[in-house]
Amino acid sequence: MKQLEQKILEVGIVLNENVLKVDSFLNHQVDPQLMLSIGQTFASLFEAEGITKVLTLESSGIAPAVMAALQMNVPLLFARKRKSLTLKDDLYTEKVFSFTKQEESEITVSRKFLSAEDRVLIIDDFLANGDAAIGLARIVEQAGAQVAGIGIVIEKAFQPGRKKLNEYGYRVHALARIASLENGKVTFAAEPVISTMAND
Amino acid sequence: MKQLEQKILEVGIVLNENVLKVDSFLNHQVDPQLMLSIGQTFASLFEAEGITKVLTLESSGIAPAVMAALQMNVPLLFARKRKSLTLKDDLYTEKVFSFTKQEESEITVSRKFLSAEDRVLIIDDFLANGDAAIGLARIVEQAGAQVAGIGIVIEKAFQPGRKKLNEYGYRVHALARIASLENGKVTFAAEPVISTMAND
Repeated sequence: MKQLEQKILEVGIVLNENVLKVDSFLNHQVDPQLMLSIGQTFASLFEAEGITKVLTLESSGIAPAVMAALQMNVPLLFARKRKSLTLKDDLYTEKVFSFTKQEESEITVSRKFLSAEDRVLIIDDFLANGDAAIGLARIVEQAGAQVAGIGIVIEKAFQPGRKKLNEYGYRVHALARIASLENGKVTFAAEPVISTMAND
Repeated sequence: MKQLEQKILEVGIVLNENVLKVDSFLNHQVDPQLMLSIGQTFASLFEAEGITKVLTLESSGIAPAVMAALQMNVPLLFARKRKSLTLKDDLYTEKVFSFTKQEESEITVSRKFLSAEDRVLIIDDFLANGDAAIGLARIVEQAGAQVAGIGIVIEKAFQPGRKKLNEYGYRVHALARIASLENGKVTFAAEPVISTMAND
């Protein structure tokens, strides 16, 4: 998505070879017009999938995901992150390890909002190691629902997230794919259209 | 806002005299069309205020706030909740006590995204005791910026939040005002237009 790549080049900050800071338009300050374009792009990429619900993880996934849900005219559901829970009878839960924060948290979704009839589009702001997306996908599968696709705003293509998601058989689309952050510079990769489709 | 009151009556769950559960359309599952209407309503209520930025608190404020920011064509900024921080040179921070969770957390905003020229609309999902809104307002004032208004999706008008905000001189608009949750029933209150304006 050209508009997103342009924004990353203009205002993204390369902190080191692994970290791109996009807190000026995505995960602290948010550009709502760009989020609307992102939502429209996800809606068109997954148009044929019969999506019934969009699922994301608080907090940074909410802005792009609510715009995708708006375009698709389906509800958004955001999973909660919790340290650990005692009472969880009415919740689907999965453990997710965050490499950024070096801590494990539990993500939860209320059972009443996912059912076996749902075809779910998972949306997240970043794909790196894939743990958050895999946690969300497992919650969908706990409900007996279908993961109809995974939409990522920014993929760090030099990390193993997509490979893992493809091995599970999920269809993944990333709107911006970063091949490298070496030498303080963002280099983009192309969307691997054929390999993704082969995993449908 | 009739559409919101209708939704509360249809799917809101009165847990007890103090707690209304709206996790089917606002703070877990989210109705994106309703969020768009809410954003349009906030934009029109605060149209004359020359808003330059919308500020909310993660996570439940993000969906209504990003729609308001979209309509107003200004950036959204969401404050982060943290347990406590060691390094905070580049952050505005305020302590906020949550009655629901019975814990204190720190809310933070990066200094680079608020400046003395900003006229800020604060948006939150609920107004009860007012602590979150007051914490956000103090962050705006730390930056030397103006609190141009406070927009609330659902106000529990039987709790002291609005009184406190009015005492600070802030202009508050709530889209649904709940007078009582007694006997398992939601009773709405009118918007106190005159008293609010008197505090401008």
